[in-house]
Amino acid sequence: MISVEDAEAVIQAQVRDFGKESVPFEQALGRVLAEDLKADRDLPPYNRVAMDGVAISYHAFEKGLHTFQIRATQAAGEAPVDIQTEEECIEIMTGAVLPPSTDTVIRYEDLSIGEGTATVLVEQVKKGQNIHRQGKDKQQGDVVAQANQLVTPALISMAASVGATVLPVKKLPKVAVISTGDELVEVGTTPLPFQIRRSNSYTVKAALQKYSVQADLLHLPDNMEATQAQLKECLQRYDALLLSGGVSMGKFDYVPRALEGLGVEKLFHKVQQKPGKPFWFGIHPEGALVFALPGNPVSTFMCLHRYFVPWLEASLGVGDKPQLHAVLHADTTFMAPLQYFLQVALSVNDRGQLLATPLEGNGSGDFANLVAADAFLELPANQQEFKAGEVYRVWPFKPLY
Amino acid sequence: MISVEDAEAVIQAQVRDFGKESVPFEQALGRVLAEDLKADRDLPPYNRVAMDGVAISYHAFEKGLHTFQIRATQAAGEAPVDIQTEEECIEIMTGAVLPPSTDTVIRYEDLSIGEGTATVLVEQVKKGQNIHRQGKDKQQGDVVAQANQLVTPALISMAASVGATVLPVKKLPKVAVISTGDELVEVGTTPLPFQIRRSNSYTVKAALQKYSVQADLLHLPDNMEATQAQLKECLQRYDALLLSGGVSMGKFDYVPRALEGLGVEKLFHKVQQKPGKPFWFGIHPEGALVFALPGNPVSTFMCLHRYFVPWLEASLGVGDKPQLHAVLHADTTFMAPLQYFLQVALSVNDRGQLLATPLEGNGSGDFANLVAADAFLELPANQQEFKAGEVYRVWPFKPLY
Repeated sequence: MISVEDAEAVIQAQVRDFGKESVPFEQALGRVLAEDLKADRDLPPYNRVAMDGVAISYHAFEKGLHTFQIRATQAAGEAPVDIQTEEECIEIMTGAVLPPSTDTVIRYEDLSIGEGTATVLVEQVKKGQNIHRQGKDKQQGDVVAQANQLVTPALISMAASVGATVLPVKKLPKVAVISTGDELVEVGTTPLPFQIRRSNSYTVKAALQKYSVQADLLHLPDNMEATQAQLKECLQRYDALLLSGGVSMGKFDYVPRALEGLGVEKLFHKVQQKPGKPFWFGIHPEGALVFALPGNPVSTFMCLHRYFVPWLEASLGVGDKPQLHAVLHADTTFMAPLQYFLQVALSVNDRGQLLATPLEGNGSGDFANLVAADAFLELPANQQEFKAGEVYRVWPFKPLY
Repeated sequence: MISVEDAEAVIQAQVRDFGKESVPFEQALGRVLAEDLKADRDLPPYNRVAMDGVAISYHAFEKGLHTFQIRATQAAGEAPVDIQTEEECIEIMTGAVLPPSTDTVIRYEDLSIGEGTATVLVEQVKKGQNIHRQGKDKQQGDVVAQANQLVTPALISMAASVGATVLPVKKLPKVAVISTGDELVEVGTTPLPFQIRRSNSYTVKAALQKYSVQADLLHLPDNMEATQAQLKECLQRYDALLLSGGVSMGKFDYVPRALEGLGVEKLFHKVQQKPGKPFWFGIHPEGALVFALPGNPVSTFMCLHRYFVPWLEASLGVGDKPQLHAVLHADTTFMAPLQYFLQVALSVNDRGQLLATPLEGNGSGDFANLVAADAFLELPANQQEFKAGEVYRVWPFKPLY
């Protein structure tokens, strides 16, 4: 039996680079940016008028001129119109280019507009005011979004702005999610009294959608030959296999034997944790990784979030995510010398603290409880008593907002 | 000018119910469940063996019998096999039905298996141990997932388990995202020196994908007639219009006039906030709501998350979300008597506190800054100095995990 930390280290040593590909920027949400995105011109690209009003030469105002002849009106998107004398101004709109002959913008709120004239009503005018200067935010060639981050709505805005109609993103691994167990029947059928419906695979597939991974779903019968035949093909076709079930001590738990028979090297079997103790992890000589997760729904779900997702994120280059911690909100006891992944509801109190309220279910077979929970709180193996107010590492599986 | 709180109240008074529809459970991720999901049978549906080992009658063990004849082996998914005498046991696998003639399971770790026999190696055996009792998690007819919550991977698991191949979910509003301004050109083109590329609409559309809302993108020229003609059609066709730009004091800011000319009742114009002061909100007599957001990218983004998203969530029935608070991590000053939405990076420290570190950009035109930020921290209008350590309401726009 290996510790949680060691299991994590073994898995993280198998981080992969799946390369990159280009996708239309509008379809890149949730993918990982593979190259720095750079500004194709300054941001703003010109001295940008930041308020509706008039553009003047400050020199004239400074000399005492407060009423200006409106030479022209310039909308955003129009070529700039210059004043011919300092007695003139340009009535000008937010987003327009500041005419080079002017250097200061007075907003409508501080003006009285008459017949072809604008009179400044305030004494305080600052040279250069109400102008968003060319290149102030970013200069041409500057990085506007660094590689190795998730593409967010704000990043899509930036891509649009610099004309990046396609974005380079990290390629995704090919993943198969494989259920095992003859007790499992299809969702659309009515199970016999001693059967249950398949559910783990759908959960895993749904959880991977966050990363745009489109996993294939497969099922193995409790039969050594069929198991080996199908796994053999999968080891060729996929970068990662996510199995659930068949890894415990049962007589029909063929998975470890089948995998080892196919040349998959076992890197560990059994982790000092609850749930998920029988977790088996290995690597095929040609590269495929096998995450053989225990089949109890809570075990599968925990191992997915504690091991597979961090491996996936690291493989996509977003591995330097900071650890998240939460405050345990009620005393908890766990006697076994195992790292205990407690199901919790998360909330943020009015002091900005992340609170983890225990929602203990009826063990690793109780997935009804998972619907209400938000996260697993990871409680160290070398401790039995956990007091309210203590802080532990937390693994959320629902968005906090 | 209306306060942020009043603006919010006016908008929340316009919450709608768009009805419900059924979707295949595998496609329901991120939708809002419209009806309680109920168990079609008990969970577990039978007395479920929770460890691999043997099933015995506790009565025999209590009388002193420690070695049992293995009558049969029963896998998960098989009909239960009964013992004929108390001297017998069934070798049995996790997930199998407990045979009615037995009541206790001894795990392999506590057994020695010989030629057709199993000998219990431990003294301590508890009647009924290692059994996950029928109906312990949920009883047939119990609610396993309440209506009005987002469909998560765990909920999909539950749907699969109770055989809900289709799920009732809330219908989504029909939303148009409409940009305005003649300075805007298509993303794929090279702008003239006084033009910029369209970006706001793509951001808004991407942000709404989180809610599975597939918004249509439209653009209005700075021309009163064309603006009115297009808006007229949109008011018929959509439940909500999200405009960006054209709502300020500029000569070509036709949007409020165009809307009012089409019979849209103005519910407010201008909110006591920065960014986003010129925000205009109204309602068409036939029901369409118009969120006319200021066109500066940061203003659009802030108003989207502060006003539109809470309206959408409330309309979909997930409106009772708790407020989120974060700890300001550096002193900040903001002098104007406006609610200030400070861009911040969020992190959780090792005491479980949500920290908001200011990432002030160059005003509402600076959307380069938004790429790095995680949230807006909402700083009250009636205060100028904000000290590190103080707690304020926070509006995240990136996932925290």
